[in-house]
Parts: sequence; C-alpha cells; structure tokens
Amino acid sequence: MEEMKKGLEGVVALDTKISYIDGIQGILKYRGIKIEDLADLSYDAVSYLLINGKIPGEAELSEYSRMLKENRRINGKQIEVLKEFEFGTEALDGLRTAISCTAHFDEENNHHTPDANKNKSIRLVAKFPTIVAALHRASFGEKPIEPMDNLSHGANFLYMLSGKIPTELEAEAMEKDLILSAEHELNPSTFALRIAASTLSDLYSAVICGLCTLKGPLHGGARKGVMDMLDEIGSIENVRDYTLGKLENKEKIMGFGHRVYKTLDPRARIYKDVARALAEENGDTYWFDMAEEIEHILYHEFIEIRGKPIYPNVDFYSAVVYKYLDIPAELATSIFAMGRVSGWIAHCMEQYSDNRVIRPRAHTV
Amino acid sequence: MEEMKKGLEGVVALDTKISYIDGIQGILKYRGIKIEDLADLSYDAVSYLLINGKIPGEAELSEYSRMLKENRRINGKQIEVLKEFEFGTEALDGLRTAISCTAHFDEENNHHTPDANKNKSIRLVAKFPTIVAALHRASFGEKPIEPMDNLSHGANFLYMLSGKIPTELEAEAMEKDLILSAEHELNPSTFALRIAASTLSDLYSAVICGLCTLKGPLHGGARKGVMDMLDEIGSIENVRDYTLGKLENKEKIMGFGHRVYKTLDPRARIYKDVARALAEENGDTYWFDMAEEIEHILYHEFIEIRGKPIYPNVDFYSAVVYKYLDIPAELATSIFAMGRVSGWIAHCMEQYSDNRVIRPRAHTV
Ligand SMILES: CC(C)(COP(=O)(O)OP(=O)(O)OC[C@H]1O[C@@H](n2cnc3c(N)ncnc32)[C@H](O)[C@@H]1OP(=O)(O)O)[C@@H](O)C(=O)NCCC(=O)NCCS
Ligand SMILES: CC(C)(COP(=O)(O)OP(=O)(O)OC[C@H]1O[C@@H](n2cnc3c(N)ncnc32)[C@H](O)[C@@H]1OP(=O)(O)O)[C@@H](O)C(=O)NCCC(=O)NCCS
Repeated sequence: MEEMKKGLEGVVALDTKISYIDGIQGILKYRGIKIEDLADLSYDAVSYLLINGKIPGEAELSEYSRMLKENRRINGKQIEVLKEFEFGTEALDGLRTAISCTAHFDEENNHHTPDANKNKSIRLVAKFPTIVAALHRASFGEKPIEPMDNLSHGANFLYMLSGKIPTELEAEAMEKDLILSAEHELNPSTFALRIAASTLSDLYSAVICGLCTLKGPLHGGARKGVMDMLDEIGSIENVRDYTLGKLENKEKIMGFGHRVYKTLDPRARIYKDVARALAEENGDTYWFDMAEEIEHILYHEFIEIRGKPIYPNVDFYSAVVYKYLDIPAELATSIFAMGRVSGWIAHCMEQYSDNRVIRPRAHTV
Repeated sequence: MEEMKKGLEGVVALDTKISYIDGIQGILKYRGIKIEDLADLSYDAVSYLLINGKIPGEAELSEYSRMLKENRRINGKQIEVLKEFEFGTEALDGLRTAISCTAHFDEENNHHTPDANKNKSIRLVAKFPTIVAALHRASFGEKPIEPMDNLSHGANFLYMLSGKIPTELEAEAMEKDLILSAEHELNPSTFALRIAASTLSDLYSAVICGLCTLKGPLHGGARKGVMDMLDEIGSIENVRDYTLGKLENKEKIMGFGHRVYKTLDPRARIYKDVARALAEENGDTYWFDMAEEIEHILYHEFIEIRGKPIYPNVDFYSAVVYKYLDIPAELATSIFAMGRVSGWIAHCMEQYSDNRVIRPRAHTV
C-alpha cells in the first residue's frame, strides 16, 4: 500500500478524455479545446461537445437544441411535493429532492443501455433550469413560468426565473456562466459521481451524488459564500478590514484558492470580463469595484503573509455576475449545478464505458 | 503526479479509526473489535460504537436505545409524495427520494454544529427502517405499521414490514444482518460519502451520496442480484449449468469476489451460520443447499480456470438469510443501507473532524 496524500492531492485517480487542466500555466480545455474558445459558443454546443466528444456540426447542433427544447417542460408534481415540507427546502436541498423525483417520472430511469442513457441525459440537461426556476418561484408562492422555445438555454432560464426577457448581454452572460461551470476534471462532485457510476449505479443516482457533493461550501457552495460576503462587507471602504479580519482569524475567504491552479483560474478571467460588462451596462459598478478591491488586497496580503499570492477561483467573479443578473445568493449552487450537469453526465458515460469499481483503501490508525 | 492504479486498487486515500480490514487473513474489526465479537451485540450497541468510538456502558446504551426508539416515527408525507409518481419508485430510488424528503422535516438540516450532527445522526439511524418498511407497504397500497417500542431495531423492522412479530431467531438474524452490513472501511459508497463530507456538505446530503453509490450492482446492489439469481436457477440440479454458463460468457456471478479479501470474507462465514440456522428452524434447507452448491462449484471452477479460488462476499449468504426472512429481493439494497447508515455517519463525522477536500487529479488522454 502507498503512502497517503491528504485529500489525494496530486494523486491520479483515473484517465479521462473530457477535460485537461494545467494548473501552473492556467490552462483549461474541454475535449482538447481551450475554455477561451468555448466561451463564445452556445451552452447547447458545449453540452454536446462534453457528452458526445466533438463539436457538433450545424445539423447536429440544431437537432440537439431541438431535443433540449422539447424536453424543457416538467411535471409540476415534482415541485408541488416540496411545498409540503415543514422546514422548507433550502435551494440545493430542494433541487436534490426534485431531481430525485424527476427520476420517478422517467420511464427509462432504470434502463442501462447507451440509448436510454443518452435519452436520460437530454432530459436531465433540459429540465435542470426549469426545475431550478420553478423551485425558486414556488419558494415564495409563485407559479412556474413556461419555458420559451425561441430563447437559448441560459436566456430561457433567466426568463423562467423572473418572467422578464433578458437583455442580449444578460443572456450572453448566463450562457457563458453555464459554459464555464460545465466541467472541471476530477473536482469533488465529479469524482464522487464517478464512484457511484463505477458501481454501475444509474445516471440519476450518479448525478444526485454530484449534487450532494457540490453543495459543500468548500466546493460549489463557495459561490453563495461569495455573494453573502459581498453583502456582508457592505461598502468598499470596509473591504480591507473585513478581509484582514478573516485572515487574522484564519478563516477562509470564499472564492479564493484552488487545489490545482497555482495561478489565475482561466475561468475567473473570463468571468471578470463578463462582470465588468454587466456592471457597465447596468451603470452601477459597485459590486464589481468591491470585488476587484478584495482581489487586490488579498493578492498583496497573501504575498506578505505567505510569500505567494492567492487568486480568485471560478466562484468569485461568477458571484459578481449573479449579483448583476439579480440572482439571489440562495440559488447560486443550483445554477452552478445547471451548468455542471453536462460535465457530470460526460464523466458518468466515460466511467460506464471502461469501468472498474473505484475502491481505494484506508490506513487504520 | 503518480501513476494510475485502475479503480484506485491498493491506494491509501485517508486515515481512519473506524474499521480495519486484513484482506489476506480475512479479519474485519470495527473500532478495534473483531466482527465475530460484535455479531452477538445489539445493532444499537454497534451503531453507538461506530459513531461514538467506544462500546457503550449500560446506561449509555439504554439512553441511546431510548433515543432511537423515540425517533422511529416518521412524518407520513415523505412517503405519501412517492405515490404520485408516474413510473413508480423502485425501492432504492424511493428510499433516495424519501431520505431527501426527511431532511426537509429536520429542523437542524442545515445546522453544522457537532450537537446538531449528533441529533441528526440519531434521527437518521432511527428512521431508516421505518421509511424502508413504509415505502415497501406503500408500494402495494398498504398503510405503514407503527413501530413497536419493546422490539429491537432489527425485530421492529421485520414487524413494521409484515405486521408479524418475528421469532427469536428471525429477530437475531435481522440484528446480525444490520451489524454485519454496518461498516466496511473505504467501500465505494463510504468513499463517495467522505468526498461529499470533505466539501463540508451536510450530513443528509452525504448519506444520500452513499445511497446513490450503494445502489450499483457491483456494490450493495449485488445482494438483490444474488436473490434474483437464486430464483433464476430454479433448482439445485441447475446450479452447475447456470454457473458454468455465466463463467463461459464472462459474466460476473453476484455475491462473489472482493477487491480487498483474498480469502473468505469473515462476514460471509457468520452469514452462512445464520442462514443455516434459519433454514433449520424453517424445516426447509432448499435455498441454503442451493447457495452451498454455488459456493462449491465456483470455488473449484475458479481454481481450474484461474489457478485460484473465488469466495462468497458479504452479499451472498445475506441474500439467503433474506430469503428465509421472506424479504423481497427488491428491498435487499435498502436493508443493506439501513445497516450501513451507522458506518456512513461515523465516516462523515470523522471527515468533518479533520478535513481536507478530497480532490485527486485525472490523467488526460
Ligand atoms: C479551494 C480550496 C478548498 C483548495 O484547497 P486545498 O488545496 O485543500 O488547500 P488548503 O485548504 O489545504 O489550503 C492551503 C493553505 O492556504 C490557505 N487558504 C487556501 N484557500 C484560502 C482562502 N480562500 N482563504 C484563506 N486562506 C486560504 C489555507 O488556509 C491553508 O493554510 P495552512 O497551510 O495555514 O493550513 C481552498 O482554497 C478553499 O477552501 N477556498 C475557499 C473555498 C472556495 O472558494 N472553494 C471553491 C473552489 S473552486
Ligand atoms: C466485488 C468486485 C467488484 C471486486 O472487483 P475488482 O477488485 O474490481 O475485481 P475485478 O472486477 O477487476 O475482477 C478481477 C477478475 O476476477 C473476475 N471476477 C471477479 N469477480 C467475479 C465474479 N463475481 N464472477 C466472475 N468473475 C469474477 C473478473 O471478471 C476479473 O477477471 P479478468 O481479470 O478476466 O477481467 C467483483 O468481484 C465483482 O464484480 N463481484 C460481483 C459483484 C458483487 O458481488 N459485488 C459485491 C461486492 S461486496
């Protein structure tokens, strides 16, 4: 047996064709294509790429988009049931229950053929935004809004959330957010999902495994953490005291640091541009300026304390983007999952296609 | 980065105090105590041992049992909702949804203090059997049966399932089954759960992650696979043809083989004794004889084909025990989870208490 590396840092757990990270140079590729080149595609195209392994041709993409649109609608019952619960349904918990319920409406739930898995994956990708939006509206007693077929995956989500057609820039921002959130190699939720898949558990169960793991504040939950922090700081003047206070108390600052990147996360750079553009369109740069101030202070303070900088990760400027899109903090992790589901599905299929149970050892002390 | 071992075979992923396996000598210990010495305790005592790290004193045990009994009852709504679903709720899927719903009835669902986690763990252990039994009865339109306070954890489950008080031997068998299923180091479901816990996701989400992983036929789902196989074989005379046919087609025989044990799984030996005793009490040794025949044929055939034997694992004779307890195959994985939940909770607490995010790398090909 090998020596242990806490948190399996740097241990290679499996082979993948789905994505590639160079943490030193700050490079991320999905299926061999740099994230910078993917960010201008549609989410549908990137979802197709992740799951099918290649950029779709024009006809393939229009067929894939058609199928996604056709499958956007959900059976209201899976949301209705959540209204009955005594202590409410914090967004990610509600989503976990709702996705689990969705499986009971899927005739192919426990069919394990490649075709059935393909069908289920389309239904999952298509229905995620509808469920997230419907859950949110239900939480304050509002009826769900029917999906609108001429809107993109991201724009339609914003529409189903608020009932307002988003501006072009907002629609673009939402699409980019879902693309940037879609995949990231063996992050914790994807790794947990691959373990579930390695026992040959079904696609819904594997995705739920991913959801349960994404929820944690050290993983997808950090995005909500950043939104809460922006509110808590309250003014740009307070940034310095707030962040230094956190560092003194040895508390982690949400949205900073990464296991793999030792430089700026390439997704963070794109998110920052999106956030800036939204701030400008909005005519209000308050959130953006506050975020930049946090970034600068932490960069320099970290060099002072530890002799090396700390950088924003994917969750930092995405939270700023959500602020400008009027997305409540409570929904941040669910929206992350809406994007990530395509990557999860791709990993699930890859695990099924060349499987061995993932079962390490523990060292008993 | 290290070289990859497919399925992380032999790779040490973390330290634990919870259990110990010696796969060469066939030794299993929970918290330093051999499984043979634990099998005669009550499930309550073993659950306490796993979660709290020591065998309970008399007063501690009676207090723990009292709290478990007090928490057995469930809010019927988490079962009611499952009746609405179009394509039904295969047992483990239904359990996944029902446990997710249970979180919405738990006031401390998203409280992360050690005390809140302790309270939630008691509620989880206590309510699991009630939910499994209620779900099963609901699946053929029957009302749930109220728990009976003077019955042990296992006996009460059998009672809630059928409405009949089990014999002493049946009650003992059920208790032993839950004890033997309670914990097994870094098996896939426990590993997936620890990854969820390492992101600081909550206890319910982590347990659901475990459930989603246990479901797979190469893991907890194998127990159902064995029950189905016993039915499929149909007569003792057919055993040889059936098993040889499977081997020829390179299909796996459920309930055999193990990543860690290279000898007989010590739990399998205890299960075999329990199965034999039930067969004798029942005056019908058909299932037991068939199982022994499968064991013998595979042992010798494997030596012939591969130069080394294959042994039954935990899922083989447990399936025979379930046959004698009149438990439908459909429920096998859920009952496995009813036992395993104590081990899952122990691992979740251990992960929280000295945490680092579990995040390995993939090798991109
Ligand atoms: C992402 C993260 C889990 C990576 O973690 P990791 O590789 O396990 O790194 P560690 O937690 O071991 O951190 C190494 C050191 O840097 C410090 N550090 C890391 N991220 C930090 C942060 N965001 N704020 C303050 N300090 C941080 C740690 O406290 C630790 O210090 P120590 O050596 O004195 O104990 C970690 O950076 C973190 O918790 N960030 C905040 C949560 C977050 O944004 N998560 C989203 C990830 S995309
Ligand atoms: C438990 C199990 C997953 C352990 O697996 P593992 O360490 O990954 O072992 P592998 O699947 O790599 O098996 C090694 C070899 O033994 C064979 N083998 C293992 N278990 C077998 C079984 N139950 N029936 C037939 N052949 C089996 C495999 O086919 C493989 O053969 P190969 O080298 O020709 O490919 C595996 O034994 C299995 O699938 N068993 C059946 C399912 C089961 O009972 N699961 C419950 C586990 S408690």
